[in-house]
Amino acid sequence: MISLAFFAERYESAKSSISEDLGILRRTFMIRGTGVLETLPGAGGGVIFTPGISEKEATQFISDVKKRLTEPNRILPGGYVYLTDLLAEPGLLRTIGRMIATQYSQSSIDVVMTVATKGIPIAQSVASFLNIPFVIVRRDSKITEGSTISVNYASGSSDRIEKMELSKRSLDEGSRVLVVDDFMKGGGTINGMRSLIHEFNAIFVGVTVFAENALIDPEVRDTDVTSIFKVKDIDQENKIINIENGDYLAKTDFSYFE
Amino acid sequence: MISLAFFAERYESAKSSISEDLGILRRTFMIRGTGVLETLPGAGGGVIFTPGISEKEATQFISDVKKRLTEPNRILPGGYVYLTDLLAEPGLLRTIGRMIATQYSQSSIDVVMTVATKGIPIAQSVASFLNIPFVIVRRDSKITEGSTISVNYASGSSDRIEKMELSKRSLDEGSRVLVVDDFMKGGGTINGMRSLIHEFNAIFVGVTVFAENALIDPEVRDTDVTSIFKVKDIDQENKIINIENGDYLAKTDFSYFE
Repeated sequence: MISLAFFAERYESAKSSISEDLGILRRTFMIRGTGVLETLPGAGGGVIFTPGISEKEATQFISDVKKRLTEPNRILPGGYVYLTDLLAEPGLLRTIGRMIATQYSQSSIDVVMTVATKGIPIAQSVASFLNIPFVIVRRDSKITEGSTISVNYASGSSDRIEKMELSKRSLDEGSRVLVVDDFMKGGGTINGMRSLIHEFNAIFVGVTVFAENALIDPEVRDTDVTSIFKVKDIDQENKIINIENGDYLAKTDFSYFE
Repeated sequence: MISLAFFAERYESAKSSISEDLGILRRTFMIRGTGVLETLPGAGGGVIFTPGISEKEATQFISDVKKRLTEPNRILPGGYVYLTDLLAEPGLLRTIGRMIATQYSQSSIDVVMTVATKGIPIAQSVASFLNIPFVIVRRDSKITEGSTISVNYASGSSDRIEKMELSKRSLDEGSRVLVVDDFMKGGGTINGMRSLIHEFNAIFVGVTVFAENALIDPEVRDTDVTSIFKVKDIDQENKIINIENGDYLAKTDFSYFE
């Protein structure tokens, strides 16, 4: 929260003029769907900006990115989809960050968690819009992390046990944690992060991934997971990638930003 | 570059009013040292915003962060400094990104490169301010990267040979590459990235790291490296971390943003 006195001093103006200007900004932000500017009156009051996205802009973005995701040259041997270039574009990452921040704008979140490597840019972008720090869980912790807490988890089709760890000092007890990642294949990594949050006596709030494998058995799929895209199937022979919308739009309440 | 017509349409105003407003913004940005707004006249013209930082703000930031870097509880066993929490704060990352973007604002850069894991947030922030993509070099490439090009490099005190690799499709021939990283210990990783850039027939422009080990022999230190901080020595017994300014301020021309 920033007090009106801050703006009054910076712009050498009366608080009443600042108040009027903030009103103009509030209406503009509302019309453009870029976020909400809230003014709290009184001596301890001030102004808070919550960045967000409108349903219209999010829907358009999903439709634009879906077209790019189905480009045939994204098919990799083994039936994987190449996403690395998309998750390295600052503009795209900013919109993904704003979308996920919008989904959790009414939840209280203290920290964003992800696992190295490809979830990091998404975590950083979401954290930037929520104005909170992020933590990176690693499979290979380095000496520069200090002491860590580790958990074992079943990876892939549950036939391999792996380890992930997090620096002990990077997460406080009782912190409310939002998990993000680039891709959920079977859910093992997400489960690992949930156990890790539990080990730290922190609180799991939710998890949103950029894309998920649509073939996960609905019976075992973690219902706390939200995805923006679902990779339905990849026809390697005819070079067709079948992508559907995930449940992000259905699970997000945009009313605060409309 | 954004044309004046874009603003004229969005704000339903005459181009002359837009032009006047841009003039006000330009002067404000200049006074605040947040960046430069350049207007190119004529039919194909428009406006370009280059974010940057003033020398005053950069100097203040370095002094503030230096205080935090010397906190005694940052000392890790083995004489390392714990940096993970700092490089996970969105505000701090934004300023580091703006600082490095300022240093290279007059160079032509196509892509920012870093190596996983801790350099990623810095790369993303710099890329965001330069409005270009970033690429992540990995020590353990995954199947989802497609085919890669790898190099071997001497790590640590040159007594270990390691491998790093980059997805073939993530870097175009002839690209101009800026390298960033969190910490330079001996320079091995930086050398590895330089060879990798060479292998891709791309062009190395420079490298800036958040901190470097001040004990690197000046005779062998890569002169293309810029650092914001230098870790001079760590007195584990008395819990004193000795940090100095790196050569960032000396090597950066702030005149465009003052």
